[in-house]
Amino acid sequence: MAQILADRRDIDFVLYEQFDAEQLTRYHKFADQNKKLFDMLVTEARNLSVKEILPTNAEGDEQGVVFENGQVRVPECFHRPFRLLLDGEWTSMTESPEYGGQGIPNMINTAVLEYIWGANYCLANYGMMGHGTGKMIELFGTPEQKALFVKKLYKGQWGGTMLLTEPEAGSDVGALTTSARKNTDGTYSITGNKIFITNGDHDLTENIIHPVLARVEGAPAGTRGISIFIVPKIWVNEDGSPGEPNDVVCTGVEKKLGIHASATCSIALGQKGQCRGLLLGEENQGMPIMFHMMNEARLNVGFQGFTYASAAYLYAANYAKQRIQGRDIAAGKDPEAPNVPIVVHPDVRRMLMWMKAHVDGMRSFIYYVSLLMDRKNADPEGSRSETDQDLIDFFIPLAKAYCSQRSFDVCATAMQVYGGYGYTREFPVEQLMRDCRITSIYEGTDGIQAMDLIGRKLRLKNGRLFACFVEDVGKTISRARDIPALKDMADVLARALARLEQAAGKVSRQGPADQVRTAYAYAFPFLEVTGDVIVAWMLLWRACVASEKLAAKVRKKDKTYYQGIMYTAEFFICNLLPPAMGKMDCIVSPNSAAIDIADECFGG
Amino acid sequence: MAQILADRRDIDFVLYEQFDAEQLTRYHKFADQNKKLFDMLVTEARNLSVKEILPTNAEGDEQGVVFENGQVRVPECFHRPFRLLLDGEWTSMTESPEYGGQGIPNMINTAVLEYIWGANYCLANYGMMGHGTGKMIELFGTPEQKALFVKKLYKGQWGGTMLLTEPEAGSDVGALTTSARKNTDGTYSITGNKIFITNGDHDLTENIIHPVLARVEGAPAGTRGISIFIVPKIWVNEDGSPGEPNDVVCTGVEKKLGIHASATCSIALGQKGQCRGLLLGEENQGMPIMFHMMNEARLNVGFQGFTYASAAYLYAANYAKQRIQGRDIAAGKDPEAPNVPIVVHPDVRRMLMWMKAHVDGMRSFIYYVSLLMDRKNADPEGSRSETDQDLIDFFIPLAKAYCSQRSFDVCATAMQVYGGYGYTREFPVEQLMRDCRITSIYEGTDGIQAMDLIGRKLRLKNGRLFACFVEDVGKTISRARDIPALKDMADVLARALARLEQAAGKVSRQGPADQVRTAYAYAFPFLEVTGDVIVAWMLLWRACVASEKLAAKVRKKDKTYYQGIMYTAEFFICNLLPPAMGKMDCIVSPNSAAIDIADECFGG
Repeated sequence: MAQILADRRDIDFVLYEQFDAEQLTRYHKFADQNKKLFDMLVTEARNLSVKEILPTNAEGDEQGVVFENGQVRVPECFHRPFRLLLDGEWTSMTESPEYGGQGIPNMINTAVLEYIWGANYCLANYGMMGHGTGKMIELFGTPEQKALFVKKLYKGQWGGTMLLTEPEAGSDVGALTTSARKNTDGTYSITGNKIFITNGDHDLTENIIHPVLARVEGAPAGTRGISIFIVPKIWVNEDGSPGEPNDVVCTGVEKKLGIHASATCSIALGQKGQCRGLLLGEENQGMPIMFHMMNEARLNVGFQGFTYASAAYLYAANYAKQRIQGRDIAAGKDPEAPNVPIVVHPDVRRMLMWMKAHVDGMRSFIYYVSLLMDRKNADPEGSRSETDQDLIDFFIPLAKAYCSQRSFDVCATAMQVYGGYGYTREFPVEQLMRDCRITSIYEGTDGIQAMDLIGRKLRLKNGRLFACFVEDVGKTISRARDIPALKDMADVLARALARLEQAAGKVSRQGPADQVRTAYAYAFPFLEVTGDVIVAWMLLWRACVASEKLAAKVRKKDKTYYQGIMYTAEFFICNLLPPAMGKMDCIVSPNSAAIDIADECFGG
Repeated sequence: MAQILADRRDIDFVLYEQFDAEQLTRYHKFADQNKKLFDMLVTEARNLSVKEILPTNAEGDEQGVVFENGQVRVPECFHRPFRLLLDGEWTSMTESPEYGGQGIPNMINTAVLEYIWGANYCLANYGMMGHGTGKMIELFGTPEQKALFVKKLYKGQWGGTMLLTEPEAGSDVGALTTSARKNTDGTYSITGNKIFITNGDHDLTENIIHPVLARVEGAPAGTRGISIFIVPKIWVNEDGSPGEPNDVVCTGVEKKLGIHASATCSIALGQKGQCRGLLLGEENQGMPIMFHMMNEARLNVGFQGFTYASAAYLYAANYAKQRIQGRDIAAGKDPEAPNVPIVVHPDVRRMLMWMKAHVDGMRSFIYYVSLLMDRKNADPEGSRSETDQDLIDFFIPLAKAYCSQRSFDVCATAMQVYGGYGYTREFPVEQLMRDCRITSIYEGTDGIQAMDLIGRKLRLKNGRLFACFVEDVGKTISRARDIPALKDMADVLARALARLEQAAGKVSRQGPADQVRTAYAYAFPFLEVTGDVIVAWMLLWRACVASEKLAAKVRKKDKTYYQGIMYTAEFFICNLLPPAMGKMDCIVSPNSAAIDIADECFGG
């Protein structure tokens, strides 16, 4: 099992060969790291993941969470590895040591999490979700709030959540009805019902700190009247000691397709009128505060999806190299032809290559976003800072939605490589596919991400975000054009990029109502082709590095590895960009049939 | 719930407006049917399905099959509707009354099954799988075998199976090791272990008749040395009375992603040396006999996948029209804009339209294959008979693999329409998606179908099958070109068809080994784009009919319905054919990266 989760060679390629993480740290604000320390961290994370965390993944899925007497219990086997995660201080590594972090660059943390999340996301998330809650308090809380909550949340000693969704307010957050009334002591009394609360209750931490979106009585309708409150499960006294249990009750957990070991809770606030919360920031500032956390959460969800895809691909590749079945198609009807592992069969190779291209490309993309964050953090006033932030903002909906969708497709393809065995619970891809499916849904459905992309990100700063992206891709195209083996591929990508610019112009243009509706009907296809261009770009970038390495003298094993990177770029650019170009043609010349058809034509 | 499963209006459109089932029956060998009888049958099937079968579907999934003391039990709630299925004689309706059938045309039976399978495939299949077993015996059995088995299998009184797969012989059937030795009384003693046997054991029928692929001792290696045997669970005496239990033991059932209520069994034959079977046909003729059943089974699996898609689409469409969330995007930031059902949102419409286009197109395709079978059965010596059979043979891998894949995508898209609710077990699409996933795997994986398509079907009779297909599509294109509203769409389809011919020429060409391997790496993409062309063709055909209806005076409701058909064709042809053209470009100019890359580059 050891080689499953993520291949270390692939991670090292991205960290040190494609993006040069070591050099990066010269700019990092905690600049005392070096490659040796990074390597040790990744190796440690890998060992912990393979030995302690991964063995609990299938069991967690099988057992799921138990809801009894108003209390959620996680699978028993989670307790030990959870303790190890906390003891090893793996939960908020990028944060400052002042708040319990390690000051590790995002890129290295990403490598660490690729192992830890890949081993058992449900388990790890109980320890890591407090990070988002803590971050909001660190950024927007009073000094007292920071002192009370941040460190314990970062260290995973207390869990975090996000109480946003209500039965009638999902994608439309502004419709929420949970209410807050200010008490004389400055706290607020909260009343309402929330659903789909990830880690809303569990028995792994001594306390859970809920950020709750609610409307102060009399506040404006819609998102403008939403405030955010810190609502601890157990009240926290001013000296940090635990107070009374708060009036926060888990009323049930969802039965779901996957992530069975993740407690998706319904939560009643103030059933007895006794739910107290602390205002975070100002009244009616809930949405901007929440979005700060949400941006991180969206990146994380795309990454979560990717970790399933990476594992599923590796399992399938391993299986394909071991499973003997059939003969080489080129042997024709020769009855003497030997049986071969199924990796020999062209259709299996097509599937593996399709998976590898997506996994490699998504990995580079996700690590690149981490690099942008690191570069910006290291030099927030620097000349590249604005561009880096613009790129991050542009990439967020893409990292979330594109990676979610393609990762699910990778998992489904991995199942296909296994044939009948893949459909059974005996093999791991069945769980990976089920678990992965949530990533297209939560933290804003993929459709919401697509609306964010064309409705906000393309229009912000008069299109500057997209222009930064085009310029960035252009750099790789120029580099590749100077390498004879890559010139043709660079030209194909350049054509796709030019066509994408036309498509972007089309979907982001304002116009009469019907035109707007038609444009939004192409929001998701636009997101998808932008993602395809990004993966092609990343694979071409990797191929630039690989061809430079190949030009030098390398060991045979490395030579094969770098050649594999060249073939992977070729496969994706030759096979995925032409259909993507076809989709772009559709966006450039949109058709309004989906808007024009009468509602009653849908269904019976 | 009543409108779920399949919309009757859609079925009637296909049966009576697109294909004219009534006229068809004039040629049918049981020509005493008429539209009134057909309508009654479909209505009856719908009532039975909605009232008695559908309510058992979720419960069947929840409970699954139980394996205890070497015996499989189906969910308790299955027994009553199973009895109703048999009492109503719904199991082999197309067969001759002589063998317990009803002499119903395939097209009408398809409409009946769309309801029955759509309501609970796992349940229905226990009653209907005997049909395949019975058919083989009817076609290849001795008069005594026919008398003993066929009627009881057709009527569902006894269950049927297909014992093919072994742990080391899945896609590579020729590798099987189950052996048979002839006894002095003419029976054969069988020894071996089979896996993944659908309905291999259960408690719904008094007997189960297993067709078993095995190798008579001394027979040639590979598929040429395979024979097929009838192996009853309970021995059947020559007078038809039950004998001793045979030495056929269920050793376990698989835990699977979906179809939980379908028993997927491991079966040990002759553990005690007492397993007896009857040879069906001649020794070493197992493969051609089995393939006769397999062709029907492959069509059925594609259809099974489609029934999940049809139901998932209808559930999602219904939900979208009821679920209120958010405001019209064209209302901008107007806080007074009313909340709307999500069917108003462009991205939801895109998803619904994508689903509808696939569901409508696949339905017409599947019913068209039924029509071809009916036409051929009605006049087997007629001038169109060869062409009809050629078309059927060409369509089989497409109906199986394309419909399986796209149906799964439809189910996944339906889940997306539901958002978070779709991921829970409270709503039906979660089960539909899990159940649907098997259809790409069993009865020959989709990859095997793609190999059949390019390696056999394109080459048979010097390409005649594909030529018949091209000619058939051409007829619809000509018809549409005469209708002004459809001329542009017809031209787009004509260009796609011409490009597909080039692609077909490329993938089916013989050549040196590496070229053959590369061609097979494009087998599945070729199957996919052929399927896209078929769906576009079917939707254009439907649009021809609809526009002719619209030219006449129709009621407002019908007008909206036919306009919906026009929009659906437009949506698919404008949005799905351009990317398909991109894929065809890739097939015409293939890239060998997936073949050339070293095996060790896949995975760690």
